[in-house]
Amino acid sequence: MITAKARAVDGPDKLFRVAEIKRRDLDVHDVLIEIKYAGICHSDIHTAHGEWGAVHYPLVPGHEIAGIVAEVGAEVTKYKVGDRVGVGCMVDSCGECENCRNGEEQYCLNGNTPTYAGVDKYGEPTQGGYSTHIVVPENFVVRIPDNIGLDVAAPLLCAGITTYSPLNHWQAGPGKKVAVIGLGGLGHMAVKIAHAKGAEVTVLSQTLRKKDDGLKFGADHYHATSEPDTFKKLAGSFDLIINTVSAKLDMDAYFSLLTLDGTLVNVGAPAEPLSVNVFSLIGQRRSFAGSAIGGIRETQEMLDFCAEHDIAPQIEVISADPEQIDKAYKRVLASDVRYRFVIDISTM
Amino acid sequence: MITAKARAVDGPDKLFRVAEIKRRDLDVHDVLIEIKYAGICHSDIHTAHGEWGAVHYPLVPGHEIAGIVAEVGAEVTKYKVGDRVGVGCMVDSCGECENCRNGEEQYCLNGNTPTYAGVDKYGEPTQGGYSTHIVVPENFVVRIPDNIGLDVAAPLLCAGITTYSPLNHWQAGPGKKVAVIGLGGLGHMAVKIAHAKGAEVTVLSQTLRKKDDGLKFGADHYHATSEPDTFKKLAGSFDLIINTVSAKLDMDAYFSLLTLDGTLVNVGAPAEPLSVNVFSLIGQRRSFAGSAIGGIRETQEMLDFCAEHDIAPQIEVISADPEQIDKAYKRVLASDVRYRFVIDISTM
Repeated sequence: MITAKARAVDGPDKLFRVAEIKRRDLDVHDVLIEIKYAGICHSDIHTAHGEWGAVHYPLVPGHEIAGIVAEVGAEVTKYKVGDRVGVGCMVDSCGECENCRNGEEQYCLNGNTPTYAGVDKYGEPTQGGYSTHIVVPENFVVRIPDNIGLDVAAPLLCAGITTYSPLNHWQAGPGKKVAVIGLGGLGHMAVKIAHAKGAEVTVLSQTLRKKDDGLKFGADHYHATSEPDTFKKLAGSFDLIINTVSAKLDMDAYFSLLTLDGTLVNVGAPAEPLSVNVFSLIGQRRSFAGSAIGGIRETQEMLDFCAEHDIAPQIEVISADPEQIDKAYKRVLASDVRYRFVIDISTM
Repeated sequence: MITAKARAVDGPDKLFRVAEIKRRDLDVHDVLIEIKYAGICHSDIHTAHGEWGAVHYPLVPGHEIAGIVAEVGAEVTKYKVGDRVGVGCMVDSCGECENCRNGEEQYCLNGNTPTYAGVDKYGEPTQGGYSTHIVVPENFVVRIPDNIGLDVAAPLLCAGITTYSPLNHWQAGPGKKVAVIGLGGLGHMAVKIAHAKGAEVTVLSQTLRKKDDGLKFGADHYHATSEPDTFKKLAGSFDLIINTVSAKLDMDAYFSLLTLDGTLVNVGAPAEPLSVNVFSLIGQRRSFAGSAIGGIRETQEMLDFCAEHDIAPQIEVISADPEQIDKAYKRVLASDVRYRFVIDISTM
């Protein structure tokens, strides 16, 4: 067993504390990673607060992990000690179902193993990246290209792939008009990636407060959804809308912005159900879809794409001081983050 | 002006009465059709009762029209007197927008002209097929193949194309598992067409009451949705679900029946909004879509497909006696129709 330093919470309304956790001894296909940076994702907060269902405490969140390979199992072929690697939202899956065989492990029909708040095949609760070390099967480890810093690489493992995957699947590219709802951690990645893919990109944000940033990230247009005129002006405009907002929006208003055969994809997952007027879909054969992260092969493709196009998230690095993490959570909840917090694990 | 006999209602809660209506003199591209049969669609009832918004009374419903060309305008090239023809849910569109130019007149960006309860380009209210004659621009007339009887052809113009179009668009065919929710006028056509396209077809109906019919129409499987076990057994089964039911269903339960990348398409249009839990879509990258009838080119393609595959709706022919129409409406509302009422206009 390997002892790792970590930051954990003991209950839904508890603050972070210094902790020690055990990582399993390496199985033949396992990789031990010395974690350098861990991003803070909004889902970390939902999960730590028990808002997405009961979880096992103490809980160590973190599924945006970047680090260096420190040791490899006897039969590991893909990585060697010293490699720069990343781990995202899942650390295992059945490997046998149709979706796993097609490289869509995120949709494993037997349920993949989430990086934290899950249970691994050994029956142990999984613990995430707010920690100095993690042990992960090599098939769930991706390679971080040399020209991407480990600090900015971390958020790519969730915010990056969560937006890259639907932009890829629904073929954002030249000639396509793409709108992104919300300019937060996910939204700002969606803008950068859609722009790099050659699409014409519009940000739909509550206000124009972040307009300069949005345009800098590559948006061609920026509109405030608090202005009622916006929905009239943009009616029937977009081939694809990526909704990164987890709140209960007026979906029919957003559907009206889609062209014939346009698709609105939710990557944000509001806890309460949304209301859909079917006429909004029937009117122009529109689709309302959902998308979850991406497969491992696609995650590697996303990292290589970001390396090639020089794409990195805007981050604010914080120390691993538990109070700093608590404070970062509060700021995320107050939408006071531009655009992703990343914990410097070397300060742990 | 041409005087036509018709059946009309004078208000949302009025019964049908004998009426006379005027049809315009033929414009150069118009076709005068002597109507032989008119189907009764559930939307006729919604509209006659004013449930889909205010309408102009007296109203003559009917958008499943089959008849014979009686006269043609000076520049008509597609049809001649004596041709067997049909008219569906629309009788005109702008012809200039992108969708019209692509043969998707049903999605005309300037709004198509519905066959009844609309206003035509002359500023006159449109009146439908419960009538002896109708005048329609040749571009909105389709040819009924010789081996399809005019009586069974009528319902193809709405129920047929409304189900053919999404089955076509979402590529129902060999190797695809298609479910049809509801075995009514639309549902029974969806089953026949999906079967003819080579898909494996499942009916999802409240009870097993119409099971024998469903299997006869070409369904491979038939399940009662009132049995809770059905949703467990069929989880993740279907590539495509066509929802023909206009009531407020538990959509999340139906989404759970879709495979990865599966799509549920509503062709039924419930008046109240539906509730959607986004997790049901995100879980397997599912889509919830809507589809409206089909374009004119696709409607002709549907008729030719039905002729080739010997597909016809099950109909119950009634006389044009106003009381018979009132009675048919009541039976449709009570789901007591197998599977489409068709008015014999020769009795008018």
